[in-house]
Amino acid sequence: MAQQARAIKTRRAILEAAATVFAERGYERTTIGEILVRAGVTKGALYFHFASKEEVALGVLDAQMLDVPLSPRAIKLQELADQCFLLTHRLQHDALVRASVGLALDTGATGVDRVGAFQAWIDEVSEILTASQARGELLVHVNVADTARLFCGAFSGVQAMSQILCEREDLAHRVSVLLQHFMPSVCTPALLTSLDLTEGRVAQLAAEYEAELLRREQNPADTHG
Amino acid sequence: MAQQARAIKTRRAILEAAATVFAERGYERTTIGEILVRAGVTKGALYFHFASKEEVALGVLDAQMLDVPLSPRAIKLQELADQCFLLTHRLQHDALVRASVGLALDTGATGVDRVGAFQAWIDEVSEILTASQARGELLVHVNVADTARLFCGAFSGVQAMSQILCEREDLAHRVSVLLQHFMPSVCTPALLTSLDLTEGRVAQLAAEYEAELLRREQNPADTHG
Repeated sequence: MAQQARAIKTRRAILEAAATVFAERGYERTTIGEILVRAGVTKGALYFHFASKEEVALGVLDAQMLDVPLSPRAIKLQELADQCFLLTHRLQHDALVRASVGLALDTGATGVDRVGAFQAWIDEVSEILTASQARGELLVHVNVADTARLFCGAFSGVQAMSQILCEREDLAHRVSVLLQHFMPSVCTPALLTSLDLTEGRVAQLAAEYEAELLRREQNPADTHG
Repeated sequence: MAQQARAIKTRRAILEAAATVFAERGYERTTIGEILVRAGVTKGALYFHFASKEEVALGVLDAQMLDVPLSPRAIKLQELADQCFLLTHRLQHDALVRASVGLALDTGATGVDRVGAFQAWIDEVSEILTASQARGELLVHVNVADTARLFCGAFSGVQAMSQILCEREDLAHRVSVLLQHFMPSVCTPALLTSLDLTEGRVAQLAAEYEAELLRREQNPADTHG
């Protein structure tokens, strides 16, 4: 295994171990020592990647971001929907992504910059909405800042409720319902019918995403980040 | 103080103490003994009201329900909006209501029936939407079960985000934005303009609610529950 690939693997092992311990003991009570034991790595390896427990937590929070960016869509609002559908797939299949979202919502984790994590997500959605507005996709009254916050807040809650009620088994349906209620309030009617907001889209996007991840793993030279 | 009023006060003191300890230590780690010390009540007093720690937690979860029901509104969807606006006020001003919502979303509280708490809220919203549908207020395509879940999930997330970003200072605005994006997808256009979804409504409803609570406190004979 190439050195870079090994480093990526170690980093991921540390984050997965940390995510598990944070979930079990809470962020506040977790020590670096416990993360080391769980990850099965040396102190040196951990401090090569992270300077402190808080940096590990920030790494966990970052894990909800996409490893591979979505290819640009003809309609920007479809890109927003696709981000949600892909996050749905990752929440269902990647424990680290679940831990990341859990840590962002954990009100007991007072030492972690949860504000920054939420703000980064809101900024990302704002960026998509601003581009969408520039292309004339949005209804004239839409306030991008308010809409971005609503969208991030509502998605957080919908996935938390789905987790509580059924371990996120119905999440694809819940996210589809969210998008179908949300889009008519922001999207021009002419475009609305061109959007694919059906839950079947989750499987389709997931297949493309996993294939791209695999391709990058087999061609490490293409991997950036 | 009448005996009934004293019992209500003791019950509330226990719930407030429990809510504080749950928030500090997590539900799992909290003992009945710690709740007793914090509430300053005897073991007998606690067991008069609650049979177990889990029952105390259920009491905390119940505290997000209204002590005083809203008077019926001419438009059922306005009643749904008003429930949200009043919960906004109570989240901002009542620590027990905050603890209740926090416990419902606390993924570490595995011993508590969070499913039941969410389901009760979803059922309440479903009931309002069903009545609303019977009166012809809803667009024909609305699926009451899906819409009720979306609404509860989205509200949960919007308040959690507002707590994280600014200790719920902007919650009235966030809830107003949520309602303004949500209602056009469920309400017939003719009715939509009759709804008051502006954030100013929070203060107005809060004043009515607090006045009614005070009136009941001064006339305990009217108090039911």
